Amino acid sequence: MKSILVLNGPNLNLLGLRQPDVYGTVTLDNIKAQCETKAHDLKIGLEFLQSNDEGALIDRIHKASASHAGIILNAGAYTHTSIALMDAIASVNVPVIELHLSNIHAREEFRKTSYIAPVAIGQICGFGAYGYSLAIDALLSYLEQNT
Amino acid sequence: MKSILVLNGPNLNLLGLRQPDVYGTVTLDNIKAQCETKAHDLKIGLEFLQSNDEGALIDRIHKASASHAGIILNAGAYTHTSIALMDAIASVNVPVIELHLSNIHAREEFRKTSYIAPVAIGQICGFGAYGYSLAIDALLSYLEQNT
Amino acid sequence: MKSILVLNGPNLNLLGLRQPDVYGTVTLDNIKAQCETKAHDLKIGLEFLQSNDEGALIDRIHKASASHAGIILNAGAYTHTSIALMDAIASVNVPVIELHLSNIHAREEFRKTSYIAPVAIGQICGFGAYGYSLAIDALLSYLEQNT
Amino acid sequence: MKSILVLNGPNLNLLGLRQPDVYGTVTLDNIKAQCETKAHDLKIGLEFLQSNDEGALIDRIHKASASHAGIILNAGAYTHTSIALMDAIASVNVPVIELHLSNIHAREEFRKTSYIAPVAIGQICGFGAYGYSLAIDALLSYLEQNT
Amino acid sequence: MKSILVLNGPNLNLLGLRQPDVYGTVTLDNIKAQCETKAHDLKIGLEFLQSNDEGALIDRIHKASASHAGIILNAGAYTHTSIALMDAIASVNVPVIELHLSNIHAREEFRKTSYIAPVAIGQICGFGAYGYSLAIDALLSYLEQNT
Amino acid sequence: MKSILVLNGPNLNLLGLRQPDVYGTVTLDNIKAQCETKAHDLKIGLEFLQSNDEGALIDRIHKASASHAGIILNAGAYTHTSIALMDAIASVNVPVIELHLSNIHAREEFRKTSYIAPVAIGQICGFGAYGYSLAIDALLSYLEQNT
Amino acid sequence: MKSILVLNGPNLNLLGLRQPDVYGTVTLDNIKAQCETKAHDLKIGLEFLQSNDEGALIDRIHKASASHAGIILNAGAYTHTSIALMDAIASVNVPVIELHLSNIHAREEFRKTSYIAPVAIGQICGFGAYGYSLAIDALLSYLEQNT
Amino acid sequence: MKSILVLNGPNLNLLGLRQPDVYGTVTLDNIKAQCETKAHDLKIGLEFLQSNDEGALIDRIHKASASHAGIILNAGAYTHTSIALMDAIASVNVPVIELHLSNIHAREEFRKTSYIAPVAIGQICGFGAYGYSLAIDALLSYLEQNT
Amino acid sequence: MKSILVLNGPNLNLLGLRQPDVYGTVTLDNIKAQCETKAHDLKIGLEFLQSNDEGALIDRIHKASASHAGIILNAGAYTHTSIALMDAIASVNVPVIELHLSNIHAREEFRKTSYIAPVAIGQICGFGAYGYSLAIDALLSYLEQNT
Amino acid sequence: MKSILVLNGPNLNLLGLRQPDVYGTVTLDNIKAQCETKAHDLKIGLEFLQSNDEGALIDRIHKASASHAGIILNAGAYTHTSIALMDAIASVNVPVIELHLSNIHAREEFRKTSYIAPVAIGQICGFGAYGYSLAIDALLSYLEQNT
Amino acid sequence: MKSILVLNGPNLNLLGLRQPDVYGTVTLDNIKAQCETKAHDLKIGLEFLQSNDEGALIDRIHKASASHAGIILNAGAYTHTSIALMDAIASVNVPVIELHLSNIHAREEFRKTSYIAPVAIGQICGFGAYGYSLAIDALLSYLEQNT
Amino acid sequence: MKSILVLNGPNLNLLGLRQPDVYGTVTLDNIKAQCETKAHDLKIGLEFLQSNDEGALIDRIHKASASHAGIILNAGAYTHTSIALMDAIASVNVPVIELHLSNIHAREEFRKTSYIAPVAIGQICGFGAYGYSLAIDALLSYLEQNT
Repeated sequence: MKSILVLNGPNLNLLGLRQPDVYGTVTLDNIKAQCETKAHDLKIGLEFLQSNDEGALIDRIHKASASHAGIILNAGAYTHTSIALMDAIASVNVPVIELHLSNIHAREEFRKTSYIAPVAIGQICGFGAYGYSLAIDALLSYLEQNT
Repeated sequence: MKSILVLNGPNLNLLGLRQPDVYGTVTLDNIKAQCETKAHDLKIGLEFLQSNDEGALIDRIHKASASHAGIILNAGAYTHTSIALMDAIASVNVPVIELHLSNIHAREEFRKTSYIAPVAIGQICGFGAYGYSLAIDALLSYLEQNT
Repeated sequence: MKSILVLNGPNLNLLGLRQPDVYGTVTLDNIKAQCETKAHDLKIGLEFLQSNDEGALIDRIHKASASHAGIILNAGAYTHTSIALMDAIASVNVPVIELHLSNIHAREEFRKTSYIAPVAIGQICGFGAYGYSLAIDALLSYLEQNT
Repeated sequence: MKSILVLNGPNLNLLGLRQPDVYGTVTLDNIKAQCETKAHDLKIGLEFLQSNDEGALIDRIHKASASHAGIILNAGAYTHTSIALMDAIASVNVPVIELHLSNIHAREEFRKTSYIAPVAIGQICGFGAYGYSLAIDALLSYLEQNT
Repeated sequence: MKSILVLNGPNLNLLGLRQPDVYGTVTLDNIKAQCETKAHDLKIGLEFLQSNDEGALIDRIHKASASHAGIILNAGAYTHTSIALMDAIASVNVPVIELHLSNIHAREEFRKTSYIAPVAIGQICGFGAYGYSLAIDALLSYLEQNT
Repeated sequence: MKSILVLNGPNLNLLGLRQPDVYGTVTLDNIKAQCETKAHDLKIGLEFLQSNDEGALIDRIHKASASHAGIILNAGAYTHTSIALMDAIASVNVPVIELHLSNIHAREEFRKTSYIAPVAIGQICGFGAYGYSLAIDALLSYLEQNT
Repeated sequence: MKSILVLNGPNLNLLGLRQPDVYGTVTLDNIKAQCETKAHDLKIGLEFLQSNDEGALIDRIHKASASHAGIILNAGAYTHTSIALMDAIASVNVPVIELHLSNIHAREEFRKTSYIAPVAIGQICGFGAYGYSLAIDALLSYLEQNT
Repeated sequence: MKSILVLNGPNLNLLGLRQPDVYGTVTLDNIKAQCETKAHDLKIGLEFLQSNDEGALIDRIHKASASHAGIILNAGAYTHTSIALMDAIASVNVPVIELHLSNIHAREEFRKTSYIAPVAIGQICGFGAYGYSLAIDALLSYLEQNT
Repeated sequence: MKSILVLNGPNLNLLGLRQPDVYGTVTLDNIKAQCETKAHDLKIGLEFLQSNDEGALIDRIHKASASHAGIILNAGAYTHTSIALMDAIASVNVPVIELHLSNIHAREEFRKTSYIAPVAIGQICGFGAYGYSLAIDALLSYLEQNT
Repeated sequence: MKSILVLNGPNLNLLGLRQPDVYGTVTLDNIKAQCETKAHDLKIGLEFLQSNDEGALIDRIHKASASHAGIILNAGAYTHTSIALMDAIASVNVPVIELHLSNIHAREEFRKTSYIAPVAIGQICGFGAYGYSLAIDALLSYLEQNT
Repeated sequence: MKSILVLNGPNLNLLGLRQPDVYGTVTLDNIKAQCETKAHDLKIGLEFLQSNDEGALIDRIHKASASHAGIILNAGAYTHTSIALMDAIASVNVPVIELHLSNIHAREEFRKTSYIAPVAIGQICGFGAYGYSLAIDALLSYLEQNT
Repeated sequence: MKSILVLNGPNLNLLGLRQPDVYGTVTLDNIKAQCETKAHDLKIGLEFLQSNDEGALIDRIHKASASHAGIILNAGAYTHTSIALMDAIASVNVPVIELHLSNIHAREEFRKTSYIAPVAIGQICGFGAYGYSLAIDALLSYLEQNT
């Protein structure tokens, strides 16, 4: 059974817990549950993780190739600053989809730089929690066409 | 019955006709057919258009609000140069999703500027023809949550 | 009888029709009527046109020298991107006044570049519909002093 | 009776006195007289001042709100360098129109930066002495619509 | 019989008609006639077109591969702004030579950017009408060596 | 009893231990003791922490809102590189004061960028160990005026 | 008895008088009174001045070394434009603390440049009127450690 | 008898009075005396002035054309920031020589911009007080060749 | 016995394990063994470590001065982004040699910035695994000349 | 008999000798022979030179005006770095045509700067050895029209 | 017997002769002797040259491929300005190692650009005269692995 | 007897010979004669040289310290491009004065960069041939004060 990794970066653990009037009440646990339900329906395995630590995220990407066919990566703010994450993705043989909750291209100038993009298949941003569902579909479609 | 517009910009008419070894053999007509099938299944209306002319694209966006609930816009190269398209989207009350076949963030520097992004809900890029299917899902999800 | 051309660029056709709470309820037709009334009072001819198409605007500037003594140009977003419009103005022997409804210098950074300015007599911006009246006065004053 | 302030910045005192072959023979006193005549005809008060001193210009803007309904500001070269003038305008409740004799957008690159623009209603430039007349019209039109 | 397309962009229709003291009295029709004579002598076909419209130029490049062995493109001001034209050239299997009447590298800074150059064989600029003759020679030489 | 968090970033653990001739002999433990004494006198709680790890600092800011009324953050070099820390502060409902031992604006160019500043109340820098005392006063003053 | 100078730059005279809903009702006179009270309690002398004139501020800094042990300088907008003020501070033997009411690092890009910073001991910004009190403490602490 | 003006800008009044170990013990009064002696020997008139005020310097340049054949301008820090001074020089018919005590091209980056240079005959910098003597020679040489 | 630390940053643990066709089959363990053999021959101690975590690398540099005479640092991607690592090196009294497997100056633009270089003795890059041997020689040579 | 100089800069002596698989087998001697044949046919004189030395190239341009009616200059890499060559061309009364074997506008960013262009009649690039033939035609055409 | 070329650029002839207190007393002749001794021990040939002339350095690189297996190039200041040297290296089939006495990455900003780096195997800098020894080892190691 | 070197860079040999209507009829030989006369009067030795070759100029600066007390360097266009010349000056113990015939700060942007300035005592520019006389005075004054 094919398995995928959904990896979340810094500050995403706070989703839905703080400032619900701003970011809504969907928590990262809700998203995890939705992803697991969808994975179950699609008969694929799915691991869902979050870390605020750049080094831990790199470690996890390194380990992914042994157990996962692809990665959905919401790298949060590390998207814009971490060349180390970029190199980590380039070092493993696992396709990566770049995901963001908000439309990063409509925010501050510094959020327009993505070190993930040059080593990712594609990018999905601006669709909130629903973006995870789109990313799973996109990843499976990619895996079908490339295996 | 809800209807959406899929609007394609410059050079997309050549898709699949030229250099099939590079871009594959999927033509814009194939994509149109796939979109129409999906729309039929989802019981929504769908209009699918292409133009190489900036002015014609603007005209079409202006008219969209009368007949369509949302727009999927693959503006091609105009994405990076047309403030007029940006203003057209900002002038109408119709949500727009930005779509690209290739991962524009992994190409030339000048393709990283998007005048569409600041006025779009979100962006999907890098998934080829399948991106149209993802964009329809994303647009319907957005319309459900915002009406 | 002296005649002038008032030429309007992309998206100005939507003026007053969409988002009246934001841009007010004055339509481009209203402005046209006001300009024609003023022209009538001043005993000058006046042609009032709008197009969303860069090429059409260039064509119209080319034709102007045969029939008009001057041009009032609200080039909208093409102001910031069209070197072709700049060259069109430089190619004809007709004085041009640059006009904008909003104060473009108080908006996004990219609206501070004007390719029209280096080939125009002067610029009027920020006074909404009333700017057309000011521009007619400015153009007539210029024509008087330079003929 | 409504009153307005016409405030002129550095080097404008030399207008028409030096290099008449270049700048013409209209002096600042001539412009003052024309403005006063126009104000008389329009039945408004008008104060006309010039200073080469940044601090003095700031002082005068501070005092304006007590006695004037609006300001026409030709800040000369301070337009491009004085954040302090910008802050002065932002600090008072008096609408300001930015005026320049020449088309500053068609000159050196450094004249394209205006610290006045972001806090002004609008800008008129390139029409020489006649620009003062246009600015009075523009200011009165603005005051009518906003009181 | 081999055929080539000579495609001219915005404002070139005015050549020789306006400001003959500046640009000389050679019209685009004169250049067309010279090109046709040269083509006749060289026993090749030649189509000579001009448009002020970016979309129309793209359409014409798309169609060229069916009937022409190569294109000589004087894109005028679109050279510096049109990524869409660049993509159009990259999409077809027809060699393109970039041509300019004036030496664009000796003019304004913004004329130093060419979106045509990265997808063209080579560039000829600064030789006025004679450049068309040089470009025909260069294109034929290229076609001989590459077929 | 109100409590505050004093959070120190990378390399601050070495303070006073290495190169005492350069940085003086005040250690981070000395500063901690001074802060605790001051907190005791002011009858507030105070937690004093240091970490060299960006992820650990983010974790600690996340936890702060449960137990602390405000944060004094000396983020060291992460000030200039960590958008993730910026987002962490923006995600919690706790006011943050930015603190630096040295005058960062008088050092290398890259130390002039602060990702903390846009989400902090204010900044204190250049006063060495005494800055901690000033920051406690500033934070308490802010809390008094905003609760 | 030790004495210090509190020197205020352009537009600070308007504090609390205009737009009290925006900037609060604390006037510069209130701040002066608070500073004088604090100075009295600390048994130091204090002179409190404001000017909108760059030259006058420079003159006052020149004179300060004769009568004052240190300067608290809120240079307002001159902070970002006046190299002359920077040189004035560098020319005298009096320590200077840079003070701002607002957090200048969280505002427009051009407010991030400070010509005062490279010649000041340190910077305090974002704490409103209370910043003056902090600056007095910081200056006295500095003077104690450096005399 | 020919007369020249030696005009000194901000902070030059402190020369030799403060930090003699750094800048030497030559005061501006010493330089004035040396200039006057040299002028006497050369049988020319010489006026020697200093001001810290930008407006006052502009006023003085305006007045110079009535009484002086040329100006030696050490504009101090205003060299790098004052477009108004540049315009003042451009407005009068008096040749100006730009003078600096230090080699401004070997100092901070921002001292490499000179708004005086584009309107001055030439520049002398880096020779301390002796530069005034060189500048007088240079100005007289220029006047001889151009009258 | 003199001892040195060889410290490796992010993604270097994957060396030789993934994509051996690209990076070769030399693993980090092979390099470690080679370094230890060389150290043994040279009769020096050698500690060889790797971490993907910025904070952990900083901690290790802090500890190095107690036990090591010098550091060979291959900071991987953190070279280009970590001011914190730069500060860590500047805080300890241990000479550091900057090492890279690839020639970072011949890769992407962003790899040309090194925050390690300004605080390192020197740099060796482009020689693959053999670079470790060169760096040991360079460090010992430096230590001999500076102790 | 009219004579022209064909002047070749650094590294062009290696043409066709090294890496024939990359640059082809046409040597500079072949090109020289072709140019001489063409000159013979056209009944003009032609001198063909190459040097790797910037100073020698300048010397040769200086001497050209005595014996040659025009210069074809392939300045190689000095095109992008030598202001001295630019000044040499500007100093002599001989028209210069800029020539490059490759399309320099389609290569590295730093090859887009040409110090030759602002002082040359025009530019021909991208046509390999055949460009020399085009340049001779272009130069003769220019000389005919300008003598 | 394998032979290598050690090529030194501008100003290196002065090494050890001038300012021995700054650069030490090791002369280029000393380095040459050390290199020759090492070459003798390693049983390889070695030619050691220096020139201040860019053209001469290019000539020497051209000739190297006939007689040398590799080049160690200390191009001095030409490293940062000479695209012609870069092209020379790219034109020959000889591996080049870039060498600098000082750590160029820790000096002025303009020394961070290296036109040698993109065409060199690797770079060694900051180790003074000992760097030559390291470079010989690095070059031999490279030659062993690539022949 | 003290001796000085007057060293002239590229293209200065053409002075007065070409385009006398532009640059006047003063030749470099005239300037040489004037300098020698002045040196004779001042009882100092003077060597006057010119070269178009960067390497030759470096060689000459190297030799200067043996025979000359100071250098007057008009480096022409190499001023703006030659870091090697900068390093040559920094390597010798001879004071250098930077001289230019024209006011380089009033010309093209690229002439505002001087690599000579950071290692020169001072700069004189804009005074034509007379600048040589000023430079001799300036150099002698410097030598008197520094020996």
